Amino acid sequence: MDDMVREFEDKDSRDSEAKFVYLFREIEQAIESVGGDWEDVRALLGGKGANLADMTRLDVPVPPGFTVTTKACNAYLAAGESFPGGMWEQELAAVKGIEEATGRTLGDPNNPLLVSCRSGAKFSMPGMMDTILNIGLNDEVVEGMVLRYGDARFVYDLYRRLIQMFGSVVMGVPDEVFEAVITARRKRAGVETDAELTADDWKLVTDRFKEIYRTYTGELFPTDPYDQLKMATEAVFKSWNGKRAIDYRNAAGISHNLGTAVNIQTMVFGNLGENSATGVAMSRNASTGEREIEGDFLFNAQGEDVVAGIRLTRPLTDLQEEMPEIYGEFEKISENLEKHYRNMQDMEFTVEEGKLWLLQTRDGKRTAQAEVKIAVDMVDEGLISAEEAVMRVQPDQIDFFLHPQLDSEVVKTTKPFGKGLNVSPGAAVGVVAFDADTAERWANEGQKVIMARPETKPDDVHGMLAAEGILTSRGGRTSHAALVARQFGKPAVVGVKGLEIDLDQRLLTHDGLVVKEGDWLSLDGTNGLVYEGQMPTVVPDFSNPYLNKLLSWADGIRVLGIRANADYPADAERAREYGAEGIGLCRTEHMFFETERLPIVQRMIMAKEPSVRNEAIQALLPMQRGDFAGLFRVMDGKTVIIRLIDPPLHEFLPAYEDLVREISDLKIQIQHLTSLAALDAALDELRTKEEFLSRVEALRESNPMLGTRGVRLGILLSELTRMQVRAIFEAAIICAREGITVKPKVMIPLASHVNELKVQRKALEKEAKVVMEEEKMEIDYEFGTMIEIPRAALTADEIAGEAQFFSFGTNDLTQTTYGISRDDAEAGFLVEYQQRGIMTDNPFAKLDDRGVGRLMRIATELGRETRPGLEVGICGEHGGEPSSIAICHKLGLDYVSCSPFRVPVARLAAAHAVLNES
Amino acid sequence: MDDMVREFEDKDSRDSEAKFVYLFREIEQAIESVGGDWEDVRALLGGKGANLADMTRLDVPVPPGFTVTTKACNAYLAAGESFPGGMWEQELAAVKGIEEATGRTLGDPNNPLLVSCRSGAKFSMPGMMDTILNIGLNDEVVEGMVLRYGDARFVYDLYRRLIQMFGSVVMGVPDEVFEAVITARRKRAGVETDAELTADDWKLVTDRFKEIYRTYTGELFPTDPYDQLKMATEAVFKSWNGKRAIDYRNAAGISHNLGTAVNIQTMVFGNLGENSATGVAMSRNASTGEREIEGDFLFNAQGEDVVAGIRLTRPLTDLQEEMPEIYGEFEKISENLEKHYRNMQDMEFTVEEGKLWLLQTRDGKRTAQAEVKIAVDMVDEGLISAEEAVMRVQPDQIDFFLHPQLDSEVVKTTKPFGKGLNVSPGAAVGVVAFDADTAERWANEGQKVIMARPETKPDDVHGMLAAEGILTSRGGRTSHAALVARQFGKPAVVGVKGLEIDLDQRLLTHDGLVVKEGDWLSLDGTNGLVYEGQMPTVVPDFSNPYLNKLLSWADGIRVLGIRANADYPADAERAREYGAEGIGLCRTEHMFFETERLPIVQRMIMAKEPSVRNEAIQALLPMQRGDFAGLFRVMDGKTVIIRLIDPPLHEFLPAYEDLVREISDLKIQIQHLTSLAALDAALDELRTKEEFLSRVEALRESNPMLGTRGVRLGILLSELTRMQVRAIFEAAIICAREGITVKPKVMIPLASHVNELKVQRKALEKEAKVVMEEEKMEIDYEFGTMIEIPRAALTADEIAGEAQFFSFGTNDLTQTTYGISRDDAEAGFLVEYQQRGIMTDNPFAKLDDRGVGRLMRIATELGRETRPGLEVGICGEHGGEPSSIAICHKLGLDYVSCSPFRVPVARLAAAHAVLNES
Repeated sequence: MDDMVREFEDKDSRDSEAKFVYLFREIEQAIESVGGDWEDVRALLGGKGANLADMTRLDVPVPPGFTVTTKACNAYLAAGESFPGGMWEQELAAVKGIEEATGRTLGDPNNPLLVSCRSGAKFSMPGMMDTILNIGLNDEVVEGMVLRYGDARFVYDLYRRLIQMFGSVVMGVPDEVFEAVITARRKRAGVETDAELTADDWKLVTDRFKEIYRTYTGELFPTDPYDQLKMATEAVFKSWNGKRAIDYRNAAGISHNLGTAVNIQTMVFGNLGENSATGVAMSRNASTGEREIEGDFLFNAQGEDVVAGIRLTRPLTDLQEEMPEIYGEFEKISENLEKHYRNMQDMEFTVEEGKLWLLQTRDGKRTAQAEVKIAVDMVDEGLISAEEAVMRVQPDQIDFFLHPQLDSEVVKTTKPFGKGLNVSPGAAVGVVAFDADTAERWANEGQKVIMARPETKPDDVHGMLAAEGILTSRGGRTSHAALVARQFGKPAVVGVKGLEIDLDQRLLTHDGLVVKEGDWLSLDGTNGLVYEGQMPTVVPDFSNPYLNKLLSWADGIRVLGIRANADYPADAERAREYGAEGIGLCRTEHMFFETERLPIVQRMIMAKEPSVRNEAIQALLPMQRGDFAGLFRVMDGKTVIIRLIDPPLHEFLPAYEDLVREISDLKIQIQHLTSLAALDAALDELRTKEEFLSRVEALRESNPMLGTRGVRLGILLSELTRMQVRAIFEAAIICAREGITVKPKVMIPLASHVNELKVQRKALEKEAKVVMEEEKMEIDYEFGTMIEIPRAALTADEIAGEAQFFSFGTNDLTQTTYGISRDDAEAGFLVEYQQRGIMTDNPFAKLDDRGVGRLMRIATELGRETRPGLEVGICGEHGGEPSSIAICHKLGLDYVSCSPFRVPVARLAAAHAVLNES
Repeated sequence: MDDMVREFEDKDSRDSEAKFVYLFREIEQAIESVGGDWEDVRALLGGKGANLADMTRLDVPVPPGFTVTTKACNAYLAAGESFPGGMWEQELAAVKGIEEATGRTLGDPNNPLLVSCRSGAKFSMPGMMDTILNIGLNDEVVEGMVLRYGDARFVYDLYRRLIQMFGSVVMGVPDEVFEAVITARRKRAGVETDAELTADDWKLVTDRFKEIYRTYTGELFPTDPYDQLKMATEAVFKSWNGKRAIDYRNAAGISHNLGTAVNIQTMVFGNLGENSATGVAMSRNASTGEREIEGDFLFNAQGEDVVAGIRLTRPLTDLQEEMPEIYGEFEKISENLEKHYRNMQDMEFTVEEGKLWLLQTRDGKRTAQAEVKIAVDMVDEGLISAEEAVMRVQPDQIDFFLHPQLDSEVVKTTKPFGKGLNVSPGAAVGVVAFDADTAERWANEGQKVIMARPETKPDDVHGMLAAEGILTSRGGRTSHAALVARQFGKPAVVGVKGLEIDLDQRLLTHDGLVVKEGDWLSLDGTNGLVYEGQMPTVVPDFSNPYLNKLLSWADGIRVLGIRANADYPADAERAREYGAEGIGLCRTEHMFFETERLPIVQRMIMAKEPSVRNEAIQALLPMQRGDFAGLFRVMDGKTVIIRLIDPPLHEFLPAYEDLVREISDLKIQIQHLTSLAALDAALDELRTKEEFLSRVEALRESNPMLGTRGVRLGILLSELTRMQVRAIFEAAIICAREGITVKPKVMIPLASHVNELKVQRKALEKEAKVVMEEEKMEIDYEFGTMIEIPRAALTADEIAGEAQFFSFGTNDLTQTTYGISRDDAEAGFLVEYQQRGIMTDNPFAKLDDRGVGRLMRIATELGRETRPGLEVGICGEHGGEPSSIAICHKLGLDYVSCSPFRVPVARLAAAHAVLNES
C-alpha cells in the first residue's frame, strides 16, 4: 500500500463524521461531498452505484438500495482488513432505510427483505467478486416465504442459489462441487433440465449444499442475515486485491488506489406469477437506428431466462398489448433516460406483481449503421451537437458502408473452417481458383472467383484484380496479398493457420476438410474468417444520407486534407466519390504488372543491348501517358502526385526459387525424353529459364529492401524515369488542351542524400522542358520527394532545398527506423513480441509516435526551415489508420493520403483528431 | 565573373599606386602590403613565387627574378584580357632589376639574359600553363651565345626548346607536330636518341620549328625578347580560365577568384662543362629519417637528365669529394631551410660554372618510418613542439609499423597482374589454396598459404585464420572477407576485376595468366595488388622507439579512450600491446564458427526437440566460459564488453543456393548409380542435405539485415543467451578467485524498443544472480546495449533507463539510417554514386556526420539526460577511421573501439581530433 492511500485512510478514520454509506436517494449528498463532478461521484460510488442512484434521482423506479463507498474499501484494506469506524453502523442504518422504503424487514419470516450484494468500481473490471443474490434467507425466512408465496419450488431455488453463491464467491468453495450435486439430483430424478426439478428436489439440494458448506469451510452456513451482509461486504472489499483483478488493472492501466464500492439492493422477482415479467429493451433499434423501442421479455420469469434462450421470448410489442400501462410507463422512462444520458439506452426491467422496476440502464451496443443514424438523429433532436455526433462514430465503423458483409443472421449459425488475419475488410463469395490466370479467365466468363495462393507476388495481381476476394495460407498484415487487397478494396484473409494449398492436386485442405478448385468459398475479410460454400451477403451503401451528413460535419471540423493513393482512373473515380481531395500517391510501377505490359517490362530488364532496352521503354510510353491522362481527367483541378518507379527490378521477373526448382525439374525430365521434338522444346525452355535465372541472380540482393530501388534505380536506369516524366508531361499537355486544369507533381522515391535529388531532378526537369518546348505549352509542375529513409528526415533541411514537397512513406520509414523487415517480422518475431507485450501495437499498423513520429517531426521542422510553407503529407498505409492520422494532425502535416476505401475513415478520423485536441 | 572580383579589380585600377610586380628581393614589401600574414603572401604571389622570394630573403642563392601578382591576373581577366594600368611598365622595370643583379641584358647577343616563365597559383594546380624556358633567345642572341660558349649544339637545343614550348603552350600548336620533326631527324641521321643528334641536326630542327610556328599561327616567331615575355605572361593569365583548370578547381573545391601569379626567373645551366652540375637532394634520409643529406646529381647536365634516368646519377657524397666548397655551402643552406620551414626539405640545385643556385625547395615526401623519426627528432632538436610532431604524422601512416610490406625495391620492377580493393593492409606471400580446409591443412603442415575464393562465408573463417592473406574475386569493402581480414589483421585484396577462380579445375585465371592451386602468390593489401610468385617482404616493427614516443605524446593529448574489438585472448593480447585500454566489443558468435564448435551450433539450430537443443547449448558453455576467462585474464582490471549473439541463425548453416545446387546435382547423379551401396550413401546424403535445406528455408528472410537477429533472436532463443551470461559470470568468478580484477559488461545488440531490453535484461540478470548465488560470490557488472538502429537513438532517453552503457554500432546504424544494404551497394550503386560524385565518401568507410552523426548526437544527449555520465562509445568499424574518430570526439563520446590493428592509428587520430579543435 502506498503512502497516498494510507494518508487518505488515516484522514478518513480520524474524521468521525466520515460518510461511508449512501442510500441511492442520497445522491445529491454524494455529489456535494465530492464537489459536484460526476466523474468523482463515479469514483466514490463506483459506476454501477452512481448509475443506480442517478436513476433514483430521475424518479425511475429502481429497487431501493445503498452503496458502501470506495473510500470505505480503501480504508478497510489499509487497516489490514478492518471496517473503518462507523461504517458498519452506517450500513445498518441504510438497511433500515431500505426497510422503511419497501415496508419489508431483513430476517422477518413474515415479510422478509431480500437483497443482492454487488461490487462496483469506477471502471468495469473483471476479476472482482461479482454478485450474491437473495441475502436475507435462512430456514425460518424460507418457511415464511413458502407460506406467503405458496411456491416452495421458487423459494428453495432462491435459497440454494444464496448458499451456492455465498459458498463459492465469499468462502471459496469450488462451484463444481455444488453443480455436481444438482447433476446427481437430475439423474436421480430422471430429468434433463433444472426446470423439471421439483420443490422437494431443491429442498434436498439445499440441505446437501449446507453440508458441503460446512465440510469446506468448517463453519455452519450463517443464518443471521446481518452476518451474511457483513461477510458479503468484506468479500467485495477483499476481491479488489485478488490476483486476477490486480493483473487486469496492470494490463488496463487502471490505478490500484481506486478501490471498489459495494451495492446492496432490494431483490425483485419477475417470476411471481402472470402479473410478473422480466425483460431487456433498447431505446432505439440497434440494427437500423430507427427511433423505436425494441426488446424481448417473458411473463413469470427471471432475468436469466430471457438471456439464456431456453424459453421463447416475446417481443416488447406484446407487453404493450397485455400490460399497456406498464408499457406506457416504460416508454416514458426510456425517453427520459435517453434525454438524460443523451444516448440510446440498453435497459433491464422486471415487473413484480404488477409493479415496474428498472434494474439497469447503460449505453446500448449497436451496428455501425445504427450508430451513424442515431448520432445524426440526435443532433436533429437537439440532444447532442454535431461535434458530439462526429465523436460518437468510430472511424473504423465507416468500413461497414464500403464493403459487402456476410449476412449476420447466417453467420450466427455457421462455423468458419479457418481463421487468419483480417487484412482487408468485407465479404467475398466465389469459386476458388488457385492461380491468377485461372482466376482471370473464370472472372472474364462471368464467374465470381476467390483466388487462393500460398502467398501472392506481383505477377499474380491481374488475378487478384479479377477475383472477388483473396485467400492465402502464408503472409502477414503487410504481405503483398494484404497490401494489394487493401489497395483495391478486395476482401482478403491471409496467413490462415493449418491451411494447405496443393497446387498440383488443385485443392486446399484444412484439418480434414477438402475444397477442390471450382468449389464455393466465402470469406469474411472483416473478421478474418473462411467458410465453406456460398453464403449470402449484404450490399453496402455509401450513399447513406446519414453517413454523408456525418462526414460533411467531419469535413467542416478537420484541418488535415484527405487524398487517396490511386494508380488507375477507376481508383481515382472511387476516391473522389469517397471524398478524396486529390491523389497523394500514384504508383507508376503498378501499371507495369498488367498482363500486356509485364512482357515489355521483362524485355527491358533482360535487354543486353541499350537499343533493345530503349525500344521496350518507348513501348511503355503511350501506355503510361494514357494512364496519367486518365488520372488528370478524373481529378480535374485537384492535386495529382505521381511517384516514379520504386521497386527493385527483380520484382518484375519470376522468383529465384521458382526458377531454380523449374530448371532442376526440367533437367531431370530431359534425361527421360525420347522424342527429339520434345527434347528440342525442353532444351529451348531450359535455355530461356536459364537466361532468366542468370539475370535474376545478377539482380539479387541480400537485402532488397535496402537495395537498388527508388531514386537509386531511377538514376541508374535514367531512360526509364525520363520516359515516365515524358509520359506525365505529354499527358498533362493533352489534358490541358482539353480544358482540364492540371498541375502534375512528380515524386522521387527513397532519397537518402540531397545529391540524389539534385542529379535526378536536373535530368528529369530537363526532359520536362524538352516536352514543353516540343509541344509549345507551359505546364505548372513541382518536383518533390518521399521521406522514407531516416537520413532523409535527418537532413530534411538540405533535402527541402531540392524538393518542393515532402510525402512521408511511413511503411519504409518504419522499416528502416525500427530496423525491421516487415515481411519477415510480421510472420515472425513481431507476433511473439505482441503476445508477450514487448510491443503493444504493430508499428506497421499504427504509427510509432515516439520513434518514427519523432523523425517525422524533425523532417517537417527542418524542411519548413528551408522552405517555409512546404507541403508535407503522408502516403504510407498509416495514412488511413485513425491513431496514425491523429499523430499526423499533431505534427502539422498538410494531408494524409490513403487507399480510396479508407478515405471516408480518414475524413472522420481527421475530425476526431481536432476534437480530441481540446 | 562575380561582383567581388570586379570590385577588387576596380579598386586596383583606380589606384595608380597599385604594385603588380615584386622582385624576389622585395618580399618584405609584399608581406607588408598584405598585412603580414604568410597565407596572404601566398595568395598574392602564388606558392612558387612566395617560396622563391622567401629563399631570397634567407640569402639562399636563388637565380634573380620577379613575380607578377595574382591581383594583376584577376585585373587582366576582369578587364577582358587587358593588362591593368602600369603593370607592364613595372614588369619592364623588374627586368631591369634582374639585369642589374646578373650583369646580363635581355636580348644582348654578347651577354644575354635568358629567363623562364612559370605560372604559380596559391595552390598547386594541374591544367594551367606550366613552363616556358629560355625566353630571350633569337637568331642574334643564339649566334652570340655560340660564340661565347663555343657549344652550338647546346645553344640550338635551347633555342628549339623555346620555340617548341612557346609554340605549344602560348600559341596552341600541337606538340606532336614538333616531336614528329625530331623523330624524322633522328631517322634521317640514323641515330636512336636525341643525345646523338649534332649541333647541325638541332639547327635544322630549329629552322623547321620556326616554319611550323608560322604555318600554324600565321605569324613569325617573335624575335623581340620583350614580345616573348609579354605573350608568355598573357598566356599564363589566360590559362587560369582554361577548361581543365576550371574543372580541377571545381573538383578540388578551390575558389575561382584566386587567380594565378607569373614567375619570371633567370635561367641557369648545369651543363656548361665540368664545373657545372645539377641535382636533387633531401635534407634527411627519406626512407629511414636519418639525419643525413641524401641526393643524386650529375656533372655537366640539365635537371631533366637527373630525373629521366638516362644517365647514371652519382650520390651526393661524390659532390662532397669533388666540390667540397659547393657541398659545404649546400649543406649549410639545407640546414637553414630546415630550420626555416621546420621540416625536411626536398631541394633542386644547379651549379653553373662553379656557382651554386637553388631552384626549388619544398617539404620532402618520405616513408611512414621516416615521417615518424623526423617528427620525433625535430622535437628533440627543438624545431617543433610535440603537438606539431603528432600532427605531422597521419594516422594511416601508422599502419606501416603493423603489417609486413612487400619490399619496395622489388615492387618497383615487378608488375602486379591484378588490382582489387585494398581492404586490409600489409603484404602476404604464400601458396594459393582454394578452400578453407585445404588452407588450414597446408598451414598446419607449416606452409604459408594465401586463401583464394570467389567470396568468403562464415564457415570459411578457419581457413582465413590459417592463411597469410585472403584474395577474392567478388565483394566490397565490407564484404565478409574484408571484415574478417581487417579484424584479424590478415592482408586482403577483394573484388579483383577479371579474376576467375575455377573451383573445379583448382586454378585461377586472369587475362590469360593461369595460377594453379599450390602455386605462389604475393598480395599487397595496402595497395590492393596481386603478384605472381614469391616476393620478398619487409618485417614490421611496432617496438620502434620513435613511434612509441610519438604515440605516448598522442596519448597525453587525446581525450577519447581507445578500446579494441577482440574476440579471443590472442586478440586481446595484441590489443594491449598496441595500447588498447579495454575491450569495447567481444563478438561471442565468432567463437561459434570454430571448426570444433560449428557442428554443435548446427545441432542446436537443427534440433526439433528442446532437450536436444539444450544439450547442444550446454556443450557450448564450457567453451565460451574458457574464452571469456581468457579475455578477463589478459585485460586484468580493464573494461571488457561482451556482446551476446547477434547474427541470424542461418549464417551458421550452409548457404541456400549451395544446398539447392547440391541437391539438384545429387538427384541427377542418383539416376545413374548402379551400385546399391553407392545409392544408399547418396540417398543418405540427399536426406541430410534436404533436412538442412528445409531448416534454411524456414530461417530464410527477405531482408536478413532487418530480421531475426540481435536481441530479437536473444529473446526467442533465450536458453542460448542465458547460457552466454552464465559463461560470462562463471568465467568472471573463476578469474576473481585467481585474484584478477574483473567487471564484465554485458552488451545486448540491436535493440529498437526499450521493452526488448527490459525483458532481456530481467531474464539475464536473473541468470547472473543465480550463478553468483551458486558460487557465493558477488561480481560487479553492468548491462548495456548497442545503439545501431535509428529508433534506439531516437528513444535513447527510454533506452538509457534500462541500459547502463551505450555503444554505437555504426555499421548497422549507417545501413538503417541510409537505407542501404552495404553488401549489395558497395558492389552496386554506391560505386556509381562515388564515380558521379553523388556521394564523395563511402559512408561505411567514413562516418556520415550529417545523418548518422546527427542521430548519434541525439542518442548521446537523450541518453545522458536520463543517466548523467552515461558511458557512450563506438564499436563499429568507423571506430578505427581518423575522420570518424574526429566526429566521435566532437560528439563527446567516451571512447572508440576498433580492431587491434587500428588501435595505434586511433590513438593518433584521437590526438589529432583534439589538436584540430583549437
